[in-house]
Amino acid sequence: MSKLRVESFTISLDGFGAGPAQNLNNPLGVGGTSLHGWAMATKTFQQRVFGGAGGEDGLDEDYAARGFENIGAWIMGRNMFGPVRGPWPDESWRGWWGENPVYHMPVFVLTNHPRAPLIMEGGTTFHFVTEGIHVALERAREAAAGKDVRIGGGVNVIQQYLREGLIDELHIAISPVLLGSGERLFEGIDLPALGYVCTSHAASSRATHIILSRR
Amino acid sequence: MSKLRVESFTISLDGFGAGPAQNLNNPLGVGGTSLHGWAMATKTFQQRVFGGAGGEDGLDEDYAARGFENIGAWIMGRNMFGPVRGPWPDESWRGWWGENPVYHMPVFVLTNHPRAPLIMEGGTTFHFVTEGIHVALERAREAAAGKDVRIGGGVNVIQQYLREGLIDELHIAISPVLLGSGERLFEGIDLPALGYVCTSHAASSRATHIILSRR
Repeated sequence: MSKLRVESFTISLDGFGAGPAQNLNNPLGVGGTSLHGWAMATKTFQQRVFGGAGGEDGLDEDYAARGFENIGAWIMGRNMFGPVRGPWPDESWRGWWGENPVYHMPVFVLTNHPRAPLIMEGGTTFHFVTEGIHVALERAREAAAGKDVRIGGGVNVIQQYLREGLIDELHIAISPVLLGSGERLFEGIDLPALGYVCTSHAASSRATHIILSRR
Repeated sequence: MSKLRVESFTISLDGFGAGPAQNLNNPLGVGGTSLHGWAMATKTFQQRVFGGAGGEDGLDEDYAARGFENIGAWIMGRNMFGPVRGPWPDESWRGWWGENPVYHMPVFVLTNHPRAPLIMEGGTTFHFVTEGIHVALERAREAAAGKDVRIGGGVNVIQQYLREGLIDELHIAISPVLLGSGERLFEGIDLPALGYVCTSHAASSRATHIILSRR
């Protein structure tokens, strides 16, 4: 059965999944990049995301790598796709990731504002879905053809899917940093009431990794 | 200089320092005791709190033990002292800890309702302070005679002292459990704005231990 998974989503010690005031220079909000120290060092991020060589093995790498295993489609929120708000002024914004994005598969972007699919190099196509989270999930599952669907974020999108009990598994990394404000991942979310338990817990020097699974 | 310290205060993965619905059978709220698995196993808790023998060494023990080092007085909220709310109906409630409590030093209990000091066996005296957190801290510092003052909890008391920037150091343990609701330790608290940074981060199989220090 195809699963809906959150992978490598990082929160601060005080629970925030992104810093405040996202803009072009701060895709993750002010201070948000400090969250991702654990991921930046890994072989998976160095090679797959930054297109270089090197990177470290170890616990952090194990978690980074599992996030890309058996994934057939992505879902993300419009704010993860870019800093543009409201109706698309034109088609010039093509994502944070250059002409050959890291996804190499269909990506479904939740938005209130229609836009034609955006075909990038390397197999990534951004599809803009205006009909809400259920339609996005249906389309992503179909595109994934039996593989799992990964939710990239951000906080608001994860919360919408959590509240409907649609996420099968979440890998969350807790980084040893404080953000102070921003979007709190578990704000207003009663995880036990929604059927989630912590099924795995391990830490490196850079992050604590937990797996939350739905019973 | 005498420090004001929070030690061995445990929160869940979703950020709660106590479960909902505290009562006589659930001093830490429903589900709250599951938070403290890491502490229960330690030599310090087995011997000092439960008065037995045994208990484990290791990282968890190191953190449990440091919580009792160089402490000369405690401060706690009235809800940590007991389940009685409102004016004291009589003097029958004498704390959760029996006639010889684990403190063995002066303990200052914040309350809105006056009560005479309660002298227990083994050196513990509960002083009831109705004049607020600053007076409680002054009295505790005086009683501690140069040693540090430890804040026991709960969440509300820690938040009051945090907002005033009065806490020098916090040891927080994050347990791999979900509570879903209750009192969230860092709700409405902007730690970086208050001058706090994470200065230490280590994990055992039972908890992630962090130290937050004020610059």
